[in-house]
Amino acid sequence: MGGDIKDQLGRVVDHSLDAVMPAVILVNPQLGQNIGAACRAMLNFGLTELRLVKPRDGWPNPDANAMAAGAVALIETAKVFETTAEAVADLKYVLAATARRRELEVPVIGTGEVGAQLHAFARDDVPTGILFGPEKAGLTNEDVVLADAILTYPINPAFQSLNLAQAVNIFAYIWKSAEGTAPPQYFQKEISEAASREDLVRMFEHLEAELDAAGYFYPEAKTDLMKQNIRAPFVRAKMTEQEVRTMRGIIKAIAKGRGKARAIKDKEL
Amino acid sequence: MGGDIKDQLGRVVDHSLDAVMPAVILVNPQLGQNIGAACRAMLNFGLTELRLVKPRDGWPNPDANAMAAGAVALIETAKVFETTAEAVADLKYVLAATARRRELEVPVIGTGEVGAQLHAFARDDVPTGILFGPEKAGLTNEDVVLADAILTYPINPAFQSLNLAQAVNIFAYIWKSAEGTAPPQYFQKEISEAASREDLVRMFEHLEAELDAAGYFYPEAKTDLMKQNIRAPFVRAKMTEQEVRTMRGIIKAIAKGRGKARAIKDKEL
Repeated sequence: MGGDIKDQLGRVVDHSLDAVMPAVILVNPQLGQNIGAACRAMLNFGLTELRLVKPRDGWPNPDANAMAAGAVALIETAKVFETTAEAVADLKYVLAATARRRELEVPVIGTGEVGAQLHAFARDDVPTGILFGPEKAGLTNEDVVLADAILTYPINPAFQSLNLAQAVNIFAYIWKSAEGTAPPQYFQKEISEAASREDLVRMFEHLEAELDAAGYFYPEAKTDLMKQNIRAPFVRAKMTEQEVRTMRGIIKAIAKGRGKARAIKDKEL
Repeated sequence: MGGDIKDQLGRVVDHSLDAVMPAVILVNPQLGQNIGAACRAMLNFGLTELRLVKPRDGWPNPDANAMAAGAVALIETAKVFETTAEAVADLKYVLAATARRRELEVPVIGTGEVGAQLHAFARDDVPTGILFGPEKAGLTNEDVVLADAILTYPINPAFQSLNLAQAVNIFAYIWKSAEGTAPPQYFQKEISEAASREDLVRMFEHLEAELDAAGYFYPEAKTDLMKQNIRAPFVRAKMTEQEVRTMRGIIKAIAKGRGKARAIKDKEL
C-alpha cells in the first residue's frame, strides 16, 4: 500500500496497521451489504486489507459503502481481482474458511490455534490471507486447494448457514483476540522461505498443461477433481522457491523427453 | 418453554437445547434487521433463548423475520419485557456486553474466560444471560448495574462501533467454542445458591424507597448515579436468598425505628 492510503487509514486504525496482517479475500461476493458489513467488522478488530474476486454486482458498489459505516476507507483501498489465484498470488500462507472437505487432502486448522499462528507469521513478515466464498455456494474445491489449511468454525451442525459478514466478523475477532499469544508448538518457521502462491500456481498450470497434452485427464468429467487432488499435496508441502524451480525443471525434462522416456519404459519394463 | 416450542426448535438445534444456556437479552433494540441477524448468529452457535426489552419498533417485526433466515423459530419464541430488571428477574448470573465503565464498580470479565464460566454455570443448571444495549446508545448505567460482570471485546480502540448483531455473533461464537472446556480457577460454585435477580431488584427498590423517604437522594440530578453506586456492591457480592432476606429485614428495622434511631444518635454522639 502506498503512503497516501496508509495515511488515510491511519486515522481509523491503531498501530497494528504497520505490521503485516491477514488479507481478507471475498471470492465472488453477491451482496454489497455483506461486503460493507464485513469491512466494518474487519476494522472493529484492526484488519484493514480487503481483496475481492469478481464481486457479482461489480465494484464499486454503493450498498457496500452504506453498510461499512465508519470503515469506508477499507472499501476505497480494496483490491479487485479476476481470479482467486491472482488474489492470493503474493501470499505465503492461505486459509480457506469453509466446512471440512473430506474429498480434499487439505489440513484443517482449529479456531483455537489459528490466531496464534497468524500472529507468528505476521511477526516474521510472512504475508497471509483467508478466503471466504460467495453467500450461497461457498468456496469451490478449486479455491480450497489454493489454501494451506481449512479453517472451520464450531458451528451448530443443525444450522450451518453462516452469513458472510458474520463469518468475517468471527475471523477478525479471532485474529485480534490472539494478539500477543505464543505461536503453536508445531509452528514451522521455515514457511517464511516458502514460494509465493503465484509461483505454485504457475507450477500447477505448467504441470497440468503437460498432463493435458499427454492425455492424462480422462474422463473429462473428473478433470477438476483430478487437478485438485494433484495440487493439494504440493500446497501442503509448503515448498520453497528453490523446490518449485526444481519441480518445474523436472516437469519440463519429463515432457521434453517424453518420447524417449516411453521408449526406455517399453524396452526395460 | 413448553413442549411444542421445544419440538419446533428441535428440528433446527442440536442436543445442547436440553441444557441450560445463556439468554441473549437485547435491550431496546432499534432495527428489526439486527434482531433477525442476531437470531441467525445465535442459532449458528446453538443459542436459542432470545429476550427483548421494549424493541423500538414493536414486536413482532417483519424486518426481523426477513433477516433471521432459518432461525425464525427463535423469533417466534422470543420473550418480550417492559424493563431490563424484569428480563433478568429469573437469572442468577448476568453479563453486560459493553465497554468498561470506570464510574461503576462492576467487575470486568475477559473473552478468554467467559465461555468456560458460562458452561460451568450451565452444567450446574444456573440460569445466565447477557445484556446488549440499543444500537446507538448502548446499555445505560442502570442496566449495567444489574449485571455481575461486564464483558468487553478486544476491539480496535480507534473504531469501536460494533454492529449489534455482530456483537451477538461473537458472543455466540465464544459460548460455542468454549464447550467442554474446564471452568476458570476462580469459579465459585456457590453462585448456584445465589438469590435470583428479581429478589435482588426488589431489595434494591425497597432500600431505595426507604432512602428516598429519608431524603437521602440529593441533589436530584445525582440520584441515578447514587442508586447505581449503591446497587453495584450487592450484585458483586452474589448474595444468597437468605442474605437478601436478612438485608430486607435490616432495611425494614432501620426504617421503622428511624425516629428512635435518630433519638439515640442525637443523645449518644
